[in-house]
Amino acid sequence: MANANDYKYDYFNVTFPAEYVAHVEINRPEKMNAFFEQMWLNLSAIFRKLSHDPSVRAVVLTGAGERAFTAGLDVKAASQGTLSRESSDAARSAALLRRHILEFQDCITDVEKCEKPVIAVLHEISFGLALDLSLACDIRLSTANTKFSVKEVDIGIAADIGTLSRLPHAVGNASWVKDVCLTARIFGSEEALRVGLVSGVYANKTEAVAKALETAKTIASKSPVATMGTKEILNYSRDRTVADGLQYTAVWNMGMLQTRDVKDAMLSGLEKRKPTFAKL
Amino acid sequence: MANANDYKYDYFNVTFPAEYVAHVEINRPEKMNAFFEQMWLNLSAIFRKLSHDPSVRAVVLTGAGERAFTAGLDVKAASQGTLSRESSDAARSAALLRRHILEFQDCITDVEKCEKPVIAVLHEISFGLALDLSLACDIRLSTANTKFSVKEVDIGIAADIGTLSRLPHAVGNASWVKDVCLTARIFGSEEALRVGLVSGVYANKTEAVAKALETAKTIASKSPVATMGTKEILNYSRDRTVADGLQYTAVWNMGMLQTRDVKDAMLSGLEKRKPTFAKL
Amino acid sequence: MANANDYKYDYFNVTFPAEYVAHVEINRPEKMNAFFEQMWLNLSAIFRKLSHDPSVRAVVLTGAGERAFTAGLDVKAASQGTLSRESSDAARSAALLRRHILEFQDCITDVEKCEKPVIAVLHEISFGLALDLSLACDIRLSTANTKFSVKEVDIGIAADIGTLSRLPHAVGNASWVKDVCLTARIFGSEEALRVGLVSGVYANKTEAVAKALETAKTIASKSPVATMGTKEILNYSRDRTVADGLQYTAVWNMGMLQTRDVKDAMLSGLEKRKPTFAKL
Amino acid sequence: MANANDYKYDYFNVTFPAEYVAHVEINRPEKMNAFFEQMWLNLSAIFRKLSHDPSVRAVVLTGAGERAFTAGLDVKAASQGTLSRESSDAARSAALLRRHILEFQDCITDVEKCEKPVIAVLHEISFGLALDLSLACDIRLSTANTKFSVKEVDIGIAADIGTLSRLPHAVGNASWVKDVCLTARIFGSEEALRVGLVSGVYANKTEAVAKALETAKTIASKSPVATMGTKEILNYSRDRTVADGLQYTAVWNMGMLQTRDVKDAMLSGLEKRKPTFAKL
Amino acid sequence: MANANDYKYDYFNVTFPAEYVAHVEINRPEKMNAFFEQMWLNLSAIFRKLSHDPSVRAVVLTGAGERAFTAGLDVKAASQGTLSRESSDAARSAALLRRHILEFQDCITDVEKCEKPVIAVLHEISFGLALDLSLACDIRLSTANTKFSVKEVDIGIAADIGTLSRLPHAVGNASWVKDVCLTARIFGSEEALRVGLVSGVYANKTEAVAKALETAKTIASKSPVATMGTKEILNYSRDRTVADGLQYTAVWNMGMLQTRDVKDAMLSGLEKRKPTFAKL
Amino acid sequence: MANANDYKYDYFNVTFPAEYVAHVEINRPEKMNAFFEQMWLNLSAIFRKLSHDPSVRAVVLTGAGERAFTAGLDVKAASQGTLSRESSDAARSAALLRRHILEFQDCITDVEKCEKPVIAVLHEISFGLALDLSLACDIRLSTANTKFSVKEVDIGIAADIGTLSRLPHAVGNASWVKDVCLTARIFGSEEALRVGLVSGVYANKTEAVAKALETAKTIASKSPVATMGTKEILNYSRDRTVADGLQYTAVWNMGMLQTRDVKDAMLSGLEKRKPTFAKL
Repeated sequence: MANANDYKYDYFNVTFPAEYVAHVEINRPEKMNAFFEQMWLNLSAIFRKLSHDPSVRAVVLTGAGERAFTAGLDVKAASQGTLSRESSDAARSAALLRRHILEFQDCITDVEKCEKPVIAVLHEISFGLALDLSLACDIRLSTANTKFSVKEVDIGIAADIGTLSRLPHAVGNASWVKDVCLTARIFGSEEALRVGLVSGVYANKTEAVAKALETAKTIASKSPVATMGTKEILNYSRDRTVADGLQYTAVWNMGMLQTRDVKDAMLSGLEKRKPTFAKL
Repeated sequence: MANANDYKYDYFNVTFPAEYVAHVEINRPEKMNAFFEQMWLNLSAIFRKLSHDPSVRAVVLTGAGERAFTAGLDVKAASQGTLSRESSDAARSAALLRRHILEFQDCITDVEKCEKPVIAVLHEISFGLALDLSLACDIRLSTANTKFSVKEVDIGIAADIGTLSRLPHAVGNASWVKDVCLTARIFGSEEALRVGLVSGVYANKTEAVAKALETAKTIASKSPVATMGTKEILNYSRDRTVADGLQYTAVWNMGMLQTRDVKDAMLSGLEKRKPTFAKL
Repeated sequence: MANANDYKYDYFNVTFPAEYVAHVEINRPEKMNAFFEQMWLNLSAIFRKLSHDPSVRAVVLTGAGERAFTAGLDVKAASQGTLSRESSDAARSAALLRRHILEFQDCITDVEKCEKPVIAVLHEISFGLALDLSLACDIRLSTANTKFSVKEVDIGIAADIGTLSRLPHAVGNASWVKDVCLTARIFGSEEALRVGLVSGVYANKTEAVAKALETAKTIASKSPVATMGTKEILNYSRDRTVADGLQYTAVWNMGMLQTRDVKDAMLSGLEKRKPTFAKL
Repeated sequence: MANANDYKYDYFNVTFPAEYVAHVEINRPEKMNAFFEQMWLNLSAIFRKLSHDPSVRAVVLTGAGERAFTAGLDVKAASQGTLSRESSDAARSAALLRRHILEFQDCITDVEKCEKPVIAVLHEISFGLALDLSLACDIRLSTANTKFSVKEVDIGIAADIGTLSRLPHAVGNASWVKDVCLTARIFGSEEALRVGLVSGVYANKTEAVAKALETAKTIASKSPVATMGTKEILNYSRDRTVADGLQYTAVWNMGMLQTRDVKDAMLSGLEKRKPTFAKL
Repeated sequence: MANANDYKYDYFNVTFPAEYVAHVEINRPEKMNAFFEQMWLNLSAIFRKLSHDPSVRAVVLTGAGERAFTAGLDVKAASQGTLSRESSDAARSAALLRRHILEFQDCITDVEKCEKPVIAVLHEISFGLALDLSLACDIRLSTANTKFSVKEVDIGIAADIGTLSRLPHAVGNASWVKDVCLTARIFGSEEALRVGLVSGVYANKTEAVAKALETAKTIASKSPVATMGTKEILNYSRDRTVADGLQYTAVWNMGMLQTRDVKDAMLSGLEKRKPTFAKL
Repeated sequence: MANANDYKYDYFNVTFPAEYVAHVEINRPEKMNAFFEQMWLNLSAIFRKLSHDPSVRAVVLTGAGERAFTAGLDVKAASQGTLSRESSDAARSAALLRRHILEFQDCITDVEKCEKPVIAVLHEISFGLALDLSLACDIRLSTANTKFSVKEVDIGIAADIGTLSRLPHAVGNASWVKDVCLTARIFGSEEALRVGLVSGVYANKTEAVAKALETAKTIASKSPVATMGTKEILNYSRDRTVADGLQYTAVWNMGMLQTRDVKDAMLSGLEKRKPTFAKL
């Protein structure tokens, strides 16, 4: 079992509800789980650890409280932080802003880079950063009452932490992508499911989290060599030609097919029993 | 308000039904809005002007009359134009044809390059060029009676003005893309909505155009810095890796986040009033 | 009419049920059409021939028997084959495995490279290789009882023959892609249609094959110059930027627009009769 | 012979010193051929015409007078032009600047896009824009006294009209590229030849221009189908993988190999006589 | 030792002059080693075998006789072959030509894909295909009397078997590349060395071949795991971003660093003796 | 002046020999500056700090002592470190190795990502990591006695920390790249200069370091906005198409051209005095 003490960070609860399953909860419910700088630095630290933790094979990401997965950026805190990025010269302000954006992006991308699959549950208010963040996860589930919004144009900015780069590759309706990103309108789970933003909608948060944990347990029961490779190759291929995807896959598997897990999995299949796999 | 006199072109009506909103109407209803060469040159000129017009923040594109958004290429006119691209040497014919195709493609791409979001309403007959053209727009709406067809194989050609390059990135069913492009079969709005070609279907043209104008007004009420950036980054990211998208976004926003619009938008949000933004 | 004698290969039936239409049937029903090495080599040989056969303009791919399109890899045969790819040195095993994976991938990619459109009908058990293979086809149809599964993680491997590289570009729900690839769960046709994996679902195999043949006949009635170009440009554009797609299209069509088929197709259209096109 | 009257533009002399050869001379010697906005617009117009002019098969580009190919941007004129691109809002200034830079870049890129090969002769002062411009040409020659400098950092800017994007692909010493771009130091022809920036150095302008015209005549004596294709494919391949280059080449030549020029060239070769080729 | 009987092909001599070293000689000296179709098919077959032959670790490629490495395409044979690719319809001719070009390209690319490094020695006449072919090799050596020419424009075509796609990535003078490809002028070894086309020039063929064999023996004395990986990663990286190159390298080496060769090589280094490595 | 106390790291001396110039010295001369894990972690930390340090505008990187820039990896230390990356399962070993390689690569890439230009001086022994590291720098200088070697194949591995990914983009002789990477032979400065690996060769270390400092001072005297942009755009463009490079440049400069440095630099130029620029 993973050591919970390794994961003590402000504004996040990290627990291990089942073997090889981690649960990361954004924990600032009194502010609808809105993010300020320390929070995304902590988020990054947590996922960098989970990525290499041999006791973890799948991760569930949720928001504490009933009101929100996350309301997005804590705009008040953000506007104060920006002050430190201001110079009286436009180019120097630009350089400072770029450093800040790149650092923020990197923190969110650490979720995508985590070697273990990550399942997000979006309930109720899921605005702005909620999309940036969940689009860096592998699987997205939501509830009957989720209120989604790509909120950034409402505060005068083009979303810059990932939504505009990942959303066009995540769903199957480019017209809809432009619609919700340009209008910032709120939409619900039915629409999110239809266009392909989420892959499952559940009655309420309790049921959605239960489903996420069940899926995490299923993934955790498979060979961790197989699931790590599957995540990595899918992310690689999303961004590249089919030919490049195939070439990378062959090189990946020339090393990975040598695992004992293949024989163990096959034998277990024939013997109708559950295989166990070494840690990774 | 934009100056309508700047937009006098044959076969197009350009009006400004609301502040910061332009309405471009293809106006050759007696021929079901079929296109010949002068028309796409005019279309290009119009959208290049709208792109830089500070009085415009969103554009609606529709077809005049009840019978068609556009029936596509005016085949008769086209076959005459082609004569001028014939040489008795196959390579020289090829060179002439290539110049012609590139010029035609560039005209349609000018719609995509327009800095302001463009919303197309496809009603009734929407064949061939109707798809090339609307796929270069940002948002696509249709009506209960729209008849779509990727018509080109029926005249012996692979569509070359954009449909085959943009459609695979616009919808989420590659099997369906091949089906409609290879068979040229006619399909309706329900199917178009299901696969993600359009993001809204309305009872008739009147309602669809009303919805398009409403969406255009919503977009026009936001910071034009934010909506221009959102369109640009989404188009950039559609075509590239997530990593490249993020890098481009950071460089874009290092300049754009310095706008006063951010403060104005935030303040208006707190004060529950509508912000106004300077022209762009 | 194509010469059936050119297509005698073990484990495949190749017939020509209509003019310009080929029907390839995977024929190992007693093993649920599971594949071993000779079979994918034969499959490759068949599709390389069909690609250049002037008597063929469209291909239908199905599995023999009632029980399965294909159950995927014949795991028993595969595990024996792997023995020949083992060395006591991990790097040498890797080199042997890479050669094997690349060869296997190339065989499946020969279906994608076939100049003529290919329509797959997936009925009942459609596991593992069923997806790798059908994703290399152009159009995918299924039946009310199809049982799909990206099965590979269940035998300890990341799918390496194409599913992970092609699936993210084929459907419009990235969350669902990760879900089914990481859990190996079985899903049905309704779900496959909703996310965009197939473009048509039929009551049973008979009806689905009939529909596939009808679509193949429709495609075969078009100019083969137009359909070959349409397939090629769509595949090219799926993998690249819109700008690159347009450039390639212009160069493709500078040669292809010179075909007589354009005039013949146009004239036939005006005269309301069916055109005939020379072989290709 | 091309019609010189078609090429009357301020600050440029366009002549036709030999059959199928055009000579474009930058003609503002009293200001060391420094550029202001109207000049690059004119340059673009000239090269767009040359590109499609059937009487032109090769182009030589030189600067009038003894003192300079070009001293680069006319900084005084440029700083006045910039005024029109200033807004009191940093984001709006950025948007105006971007439009301006893209337009300027497009003008220079029109030289690269010209279907006919372009040979530049850089003599004496060749600063800033001299490199942007000559890097968009196909062949670069210089003289014993050429003084090159990537001058932009000396006026506080990163070169943005092409040098920084084309130079890394044009020469074979990345360390040298960084050195000259970061220090703005002046270097001579010996160094330019050693690192690969030019392919020939001549005693003085007269000899260099004579050599350029001789090379232009040689190119003009070849099949224009062959030279246009060679330029296009080299430019395409410079920017892409070898595999993509080969694929594009095959599609290019499937149309172009059908030219009569191949037979004429072969026959002339056998008969040891000079072939003549139809216009393109 | 490799089995010479496996390599009996018309127009090629394949010998094994040293342990792990193969020597492929183009053997049609009476026609200056000019190529016709059967020859490139044979060349491909030879290199596909060498690629997987555990007794081969490095390959030398030369031309028989004193007069030429190869004079290029046997134009007479080629013009006859082309007849079979002619149709009365330009599009159908194009389709046949494309199949032919792709097949020809694939044969030459098989040299690049060969897992073992290939060293070419170009002596005397080295025209047209001599460059296409040697650019697919890893190392190019030449002699004092080598006469190089990118000859294709002289027969009315843009080179389509690889020179135009590989040359811009092989040498460091883009101006020179355009010069020699557009003029088809003959150049010598001194120039070839200066621009980077070859990496060594020797007095005559005997000395150059001796040097090639010596280099081949050096390569053959290293770990074949290390040299195969070095070739593969360099080819991969040539075509891609540094970031993609690094990512691919990490995945390649995660499998390959596990080889015993690392320990054996290190130990031999410490003990100052020559290591031996298992076959690959 | 930068604060030297911020840069106290084992095995590195960091000094500030001139305004805005930092000098990083690899300091393990008793082991010929060979690297072990803590050293590249420290190197990374130093360059991440330098990147954002407003008192630094250019960096010089050298090796302490007379015997070596660096002999490369401390093989003995490395082989011990590897033990911790071994598992009895080949796939698990692969996963551990990949984490290690990616971390090591990232440390070296931090030199490339440093916003300030970096000048490396390679003297005497410059093996293995010496190339990986100096290829991540911007400018490379060497001395009459430098001994270069891409040493990795001699210890049984394909170089994986950057040489194989960066070298093909840094020099202009692909044949030479393959030669030195496949044979691991030692070469000198004359050869390095000829192929483009270095851009300057000096009599000895003292002179080379003096030249490096002089160049650093020159760079430090320019607008830091201009030099940062120049480095960034050159690195971006090296890896991408010219079109993508131009697009990125326009977006970069739309923010950066607004700097006061442009006016200050122009004015200083007119007034023939040295400009001063604000910190960045």
